[in-house]
Amino acid sequence: MNIRLFFTPAGIGDEQINGRTAVVIDILRATTVAAVALGNGAREIIPVANLGDATSLREKLDRTTVQLGGEREGRKVDGFDLGNSPFEYSPEAVENKTVILATTNGSEAMIKGGEARHCLSCAFVNLSATLDKILEINNDVSIICAGNKGGFSLEDALCGGMLVDRLLASDRAMELDNDAAFVSRGLYHKHKDNLEDALHKSDHGKYLDSLGFSKDVSFCAQEDNLSICPVWQSGRLTLLE
Amino acid sequence: MNIRLFFTPAGIGDEQINGRTAVVIDILRATTVAAVALGNGAREIIPVANLGDATSLREKLDRTTVQLGGEREGRKVDGFDLGNSPFEYSPEAVENKTVILATTNGSEAMIKGGEARHCLSCAFVNLSATLDKILEINNDVSIICAGNKGGFSLEDALCGGMLVDRLLASDRAMELDNDAAFVSRGLYHKHKDNLEDALHKSDHGKYLDSLGFSKDVSFCAQEDNLSICPVWQSGRLTLLE
Repeated sequence: MNIRLFFTPAGIGDEQINGRTAVVIDILRATTVAAVALGNGAREIIPVANLGDATSLREKLDRTTVQLGGEREGRKVDGFDLGNSPFEYSPEAVENKTVILATTNGSEAMIKGGEARHCLSCAFVNLSATLDKILEINNDVSIICAGNKGGFSLEDALCGGMLVDRLLASDRAMELDNDAAFVSRGLYHKHKDNLEDALHKSDHGKYLDSLGFSKDVSFCAQEDNLSICPVWQSGRLTLLE
Repeated sequence: MNIRLFFTPAGIGDEQINGRTAVVIDILRATTVAAVALGNGAREIIPVANLGDATSLREKLDRTTVQLGGEREGRKVDGFDLGNSPFEYSPEAVENKTVILATTNGSEAMIKGGEARHCLSCAFVNLSATLDKILEINNDVSIICAGNKGGFSLEDALCGGMLVDRLLASDRAMELDNDAAFVSRGLYHKHKDNLEDALHKSDHGKYLDSLGFSKDVSFCAQEDNLSICPVWQSGRLTLLE
């Protein structure tokens, strides 16, 4: 199994994902939210790239079964039902609902990953479930970190590095195919005993802390408290039957 | 002094470089070549983004004082005078000449860096001279790694991390302002005792080795054998008087 990793979705050519399994990571907070929302009974999550698409899509759907969520600059958007905190995506809020999710970095990465043959949504909270699904599909892997506003983000690279590390520890033959895959694994090894602290010290972690979302940052560092893997199908994330 | 680092030029907004000193790094091989060519007496280096611009610019200039250099896929371009190996930029080839340099990643990074208040060209071969110039200018710093085809490259990140490390070791107050600056320094610490080996193991180092350019890769890992710093002025790199 060949493993590539990308620190941002920018500049990923078709040849980097064609025929492969894309694994999208946006720890703070889109892919953490995706796992929590589906774990709490949401029917599906539709990532959209901009706020206009989000509100026009809501108008087309049955208002009683839709929740419109997302953020700009980390804050809930005016007129939206939910922000981007995993704690908002409770069973009461999302059970049997379609969630439209408009986030700054995560949506772009998911839409890019959706062009691959398979596409999975990964966070620390569902890493082992994602690993199992990757091994089950048994395709080459392109890990796509969402990053932060077009640039590198520590928290996504750490989760990507953990996934690389766990793939190498599996019983399959694995090959690291680019510098970023190699570097992310070293980064994970450096911080693995204190991931929560690393997340709070990252650029976006510090920013979310400053907005009062420290509890979110700590939650997003938790490993494997959800044994589900959101899968991309026809423009939405769902749990396969 | 505030320090930011970017693993690729993609997505760098104006606010990330406005009023700052940009330091462009393309170890394999554009900024190494820039230092060597100017060190060997070239009058100036004009980086261009594509091959068409390169040949049309040559037509406008005095043919006897111009050398057209660069690469595509690591190889010299048909009709060009020089490729992208530092060993080609000898005094015999470049003394008192204008060098037009069309490289895949480095030219884009230099042109982006040129939008900053000051812009310097850095490689391992001239790192200390670049450090001195940064401290002399005494502005905030944005280190721009050229990367490889829009993605992360180990060798540029290592040089960026070395520069961050040396800036922190200076007697000035320094502040690391983004995740990538922090991570690149850790990466340099990990590999600093064997930079040449790391370069040969990088994606682009392996590729250049496969083309027969191993001597280039080893040369590009050498530290401080040139005490000059190319400076960007009006679309070209020169040595200040």
